[in-house]
Amino acid sequence: MDHIITVYTENVHLAEEGPAVEIIDQTRLPNEEVMLTLSEREELYEAIATLRVRGAPAIGIFAGYAMYVLAAQTKCRDFDAFYAEFLENKAYLDASRPTAVNLRHALDKMEAALLENKERPIDEIISALRRQALVIHQEDIDMCLAISAFGLELVKEGDGILTHCNAGALATSRYGTGLGTLLLAKEMGIELRAYCDETRPLLQGARLTTYELQKAGVDCTLICDNMASLVMKEGKINAVFVGCDRVAANGDTANKIGTSGLAILAKYYNIPFYVFCPSSTIDFKCCTGEDIKIELRDPREIKELYFEKPIALPEVKCYNPAFDVTDHTLITAIVTEKGIVRPPFEENLRRLFT
Amino acid sequence: MDHIITVYTENVHLAEEGPAVEIIDQTRLPNEEVMLTLSEREELYEAIATLRVRGAPAIGIFAGYAMYVLAAQTKCRDFDAFYAEFLENKAYLDASRPTAVNLRHALDKMEAALLENKERPIDEIISALRRQALVIHQEDIDMCLAISAFGLELVKEGDGILTHCNAGALATSRYGTGLGTLLLAKEMGIELRAYCDETRPLLQGARLTTYELQKAGVDCTLICDNMASLVMKEGKINAVFVGCDRVAANGDTANKIGTSGLAILAKYYNIPFYVFCPSSTIDFKCCTGEDIKIELRDPREIKELYFEKPIALPEVKCYNPAFDVTDHTLITAIVTEKGIVRPPFEENLRRLFT
Repeated sequence: MDHIITVYTENVHLAEEGPAVEIIDQTRLPNEEVMLTLSEREELYEAIATLRVRGAPAIGIFAGYAMYVLAAQTKCRDFDAFYAEFLENKAYLDASRPTAVNLRHALDKMEAALLENKERPIDEIISALRRQALVIHQEDIDMCLAISAFGLELVKEGDGILTHCNAGALATSRYGTGLGTLLLAKEMGIELRAYCDETRPLLQGARLTTYELQKAGVDCTLICDNMASLVMKEGKINAVFVGCDRVAANGDTANKIGTSGLAILAKYYNIPFYVFCPSSTIDFKCCTGEDIKIELRDPREIKELYFEKPIALPEVKCYNPAFDVTDHTLITAIVTEKGIVRPPFEENLRRLFT
Repeated sequence: MDHIITVYTENVHLAEEGPAVEIIDQTRLPNEEVMLTLSEREELYEAIATLRVRGAPAIGIFAGYAMYVLAAQTKCRDFDAFYAEFLENKAYLDASRPTAVNLRHALDKMEAALLENKERPIDEIISALRRQALVIHQEDIDMCLAISAFGLELVKEGDGILTHCNAGALATSRYGTGLGTLLLAKEMGIELRAYCDETRPLLQGARLTTYELQKAGVDCTLICDNMASLVMKEGKINAVFVGCDRVAANGDTANKIGTSGLAILAKYYNIPFYVFCPSSTIDFKCCTGEDIKIELRDPREIKELYFEKPIALPEVKCYNPAFDVTDHTLITAIVTEKGIVRPPFEENLRRLFT
């Protein structure tokens, strides 16, 4: 299991010297394994916005640590000033990416920990923030393991699983969500075949998912996003496994751009389509996918192929949405740490989580 | 119209000094406009295989000229030796790409021209081959214009048209097939909005389609292939226009990888899906798409992003099919130079073309 540990212990954590957050720079993978130690407000924001740390759960873990790291640098000696500074940092980090709800959830949990300890000295509040950040991380580890174990019910030896983007250890903690079942199955001696969408524009599937699966010894094949229809038609795929960035109350799911198309293809070919979802990703305040804000990103991500040689004329317009919403009617089941939720989602998600 | 002429006159044609074929190197677009003058057997083959010239009709035109250029270099003085050499060159070029049927059609036409003139001196046979190649080119110009004009019946001012790969002047002659209507509409003052799939792995949509449309002044927006579902859902798309590499007798259509997925999405969103098809692309010998051979290409096309920096580990397996087949039940109509064919395709294609 060394190969798996190699990946997951190198992800988001507190630096030994600190206070600082240490991450692997995901924009440099798979060609370079570069660790970053971050403690400045602007570099913490930039790490999220430019996807050095990415994946909805990993962003949540990172945000928890970041709030602690920033709090530990405070020069304020009274609570009101300390709290005002905390709120300013919170609002700043919250603006780094709009679609994933885990960022907001983690920031809210950090604020709750601060408020619970408001009568204590600043130093003790800072210690409480550190503990809360570690709890957020540990909860994610527990959730990922539970989700991955539930996912085992959905596969059998030799199955072909189509993945999109990266929902592995890099995007979360330990096993991951959408990829967790593949890694856990490998550990248990169940051989699966992964087909990994490269996931344009930033190629998280090519750069990160195949990197994780290959290191873990899982049989994996990289395809371009537009090849999904063909591999489904050819009978290579038994199920689609994806993570998610936000799930609305009715089960509509925001995930990496391209996910909704995959779900439509899966329905057409009669292949089950599973969303792997820690409960921190469910947003009961969103009634449907219509309420989920879709992030539009820099056109250069499309046109300059990861900022290398341009692939289109400079004046060409680009439309660069980072996510899309998959209608709940296209989803076979949502796999959570509490179990596998099937339609009707609105009723069944509420029953399990409220 | 200068902008359009700029594109189409620079495509495949006989060189002034020769005999040689002159092409624009499509692998270098849009960053560099490099003209190649080709006369060696191996470089003619390589130009097709590596997509320096690409697009089913353009490959046909190129193959016609190539056969003339090779014949003109012959040292044979008797017919039998000349014909044997011709057949050897024909088989060699025919192996350069397997999916498009136009290559074979053009080669067969060249052979027919040779056989029709077999009683004449070698020099006159070579002249006949030159005339036949020019006829193939002229027929393509006529077909493209007819197809593009029929396509005007399918659009109205302000429509959003989703395109995949490149079916413009570069892939054909003059206006193109799938893109021809967009260019012709522009000339007639009908403003359309094109959304262009970038078309991984080789990015013909980004590199070639937006290059052609932008130069022609057509409003165009580049998207990644996996964004098609979202733009359709958002109501930006009124129709999908694609070219094709081979159409089976029942209407099943082989075209650039990703086309079948687009057709499924279009059906799901109730958007018409049109295939633009010169009759040279219909293969009545293929009963259904099952009979069409799908070319598998070099994994480096996916992994090395146009042979720049790697985007996945060297040991990662890739699956790199160049085409897929769109089931005829997903196609609204096939637009040919003789008219718009609607289902039932088998009956209606035969009625129009046999």
